Parts: sequence; structure tokens; C-alpha cells
Amino acid sequence: MIEELIKQNRSYRRFYQEHVVGAATLKSLVNLGRLSASGANLQPLKYVLSCDPEQNAKIFACLTWAAYLKDWKGPEEGERPAAYIIVLCDTEISKDAGCDHGIACQSILLGAREKGLGGCMLGSINREVLREHLNLSKQYNILLVVAVGRPKEEVVIEKLSTGGSIRYWRDEHGVHHVPKRELEDIIVAEYAS
Amino acid sequence: MIEELIKQNRSYRRFYQEHVVGAATLKSLVNLGRLSASGANLQPLKYVLSCDPEQNAKIFACLTWAAYLKDWKGPEEGERPAAYIIVLCDTEISKDAGCDHGIACQSILLGAREKGLGGCMLGSINREVLREHLNLSKQYNILLVVAVGRPKEEVVIEKLSTGGSIRYWRDEHGVHHVPKRELEDIIVAEYAS
Repeated sequence: MIEELIKQNRSYRRFYQEHVVGAATLKSLVNLGRLSASGANLQPLKYVLSCDPEQNAKIFACLTWAAYLKDWKGPEEGERPAAYIIVLCDTEISKDAGCDHGIACQSILLGAREKGLGGCMLGSINREVLREHLNLSKQYNILLVVAVGRPKEEVVIEKLSTGGSIRYWRDEHGVHHVPKRELEDIIVAEYAS
Repeated sequence: MIEELIKQNRSYRRFYQEHVVGAATLKSLVNLGRLSASGANLQPLKYVLSCDPEQNAKIFACLTWAAYLKDWKGPEEGERPAAYIIVLCDTEISKDAGCDHGIACQSILLGAREKGLGGCMLGSINREVLREHLNLSKQYNILLVVAVGRPKEEVVIEKLSTGGSIRYWRDEHGVHHVPKRELEDIIVAEYAS
């Protein structure tokens, strides 16, 4: 059931780093993005894949993790992602990817979850340095970095009361809690006959 | 398998209009969006639901369909969506939804597909008129309209050769063909140890 998969597909930030995620797996995930909808069918998204520890370390150094966890600088060595999928916009195809990267990344992460993997879309990126590391031409804009690995944390959805804080938190057992707005709070109007 | 569901989840634009999609179904779909990732967990997305024929007709009049099909003005009466999910950004929460609407709509449409329904994300919208019809306050920006119904067309993925056109087409049997870039054409670089 897709609902179960979506519920299990939380944003994971700690992983069994030693659990290998190979290039074939990354390609099968990108393929799910490829098969997803694209505005005006332009398909401007391009990808860089990495499951190489040395390259991974360079990518990791360009990322900011979990801004609301002030005392946590991101996963420690041993709990870092085994792989990355870097999502680019090819500006020779389109200046703007619209929300294509959201569509594609949701497909990618649902596919990862089904394989017992998980990940996180990261948008807080030192793009200038990452561009250098990847030797990327100006043709490409870096949209998102998707971290991928075998999750090593528990993530729990919590009810967000109206007016409450959307900031996630980690409890004393290391469980990550994510407040989500209630269904009735996000439906503005409903027309039914 | 999620891959099968993603493959079957094409952008559908003709429907069995008489096939009712009720408010409970629309809510269960929006719930899938609600449970999906949101940048910085801000959750600025809000929704308007419609499965009311009168309201549907007003929404329909604000939409442009399949820009590449020059001789087709959109689905005829009888083949129109039975329902709509209108995706808004609540600017009091965030001025910009990032790619949250892509993430949420992919969840919504995968959920629809699993139920034997299908749909299409539409971005070409007469937003001013739609805002009036929905009596929407300035607080909300209209991001996308998702058409939902029981699909009444066949959609086939075609190989897109490098340099070929991304324009979809409809053949003499009414089958809709969508060229998709090949996997090797969208992977810019690959780092594997």
C-alpha cells in the first residue's frame, strides 16, 4: 500500500554508513525520477551519483543538516549516508525546473524506502564549493542533494496543534519527532455535491 | 512494487466523468501529501477540494490543457475530471513552497493510481479568475491544480533520442505518446569506488 510506504518514508539523517548502496541501486532510483511527471514534459533534471567514500566526504562537507537541531552538526562518521544523488537543472533545457525536482525526489525516496533504504532531501548546500568538487559547468544549477543509506534512526510523526511549532526535535533516546499539521488544518475549502 | 505504480502513473487528461470521486477519497489523497516531506518542515501547502459538478465547471474554465496538442482544447464534456485538488501556498507560513508541491502531488497521484484513478498536475491556470471563483484571500497563492478521475485514455512512454523533441503527441487511435529522456542521457557523472 502506497500509504504505508509514504508513512515509512521519513527524512532520515543517520545511517549505517557501512551498508553499501551501489551505483546500480542509485541508477534504479534515478530511473524512478525519470519516469515521473515533468512540467510541459521538458525534463530538465540531470543527476550526479556518488557512492564513492572519498567523493561522499567532499559532498558531505557542503551540506547543512537539520537546522532546528542546534546542538547537532549532522551525522558523525560511521552514520553518514552511503550514497548521494545530486539533482541538477540543465539550464540549456529550462531555466527553471518548476517543482519537477520535488516530483522526482519523492519517487526516488519512495523507491529507496521499498528497498529498505531511506534518505533526506537537502536544500541547504554550499553550492559554490560543491560545484567545484563536481567540476560542474555553469550549464547546471544544483537544486537538491538527496542523501541515501540504510536508516539508523527512528522518526515519529507527531500531531501539530494549530499555532504550534513546526520544529522537529530529538528526544533523550535519540528518536526524531516531526510535528505535522492535521488534515483539517490544511483543507481550506471543500465543494461536494 | 513502486516502480510499476510510477510507470502506470501517467498524466491523464481524459476521464470517465460519470465515475464519482467523492470528498472522502480526495481527503485520503491530500492526507498522502500531508504525510510527505516538506522543506524545513514548514508545511505551507493548503488545499481546496472539489467534486461538485458546478464548481468543477468553473475550475475547468480556468485551465489550459496539453499545450503541445494544438488542435485539442482539453477534454470534452463527459471526459472531464470528476474532481480537483487545488494546491495552495499559505504565504503566512512561507512566501515560497520550494518544491513541496511536487513532493505532495506525486504522493497524491500515486495514491490515486493505486485506487484505479489518475490525474494530471496543471500549472497553466488563469489564477486571477480561479481565485475569484474560490473566493480565496490574498494569503494564498495558487500553485497547481490536480485533476482527478478514472482515466479514459492510454498513455505510452516513448524513447527520446538525444536532441529529439520532448513534445508529446496523440496518434490516430487517440493514444497519447510521451517521449522520455533515456537514463544515460540524464546522468551527468557517476562516482563509484
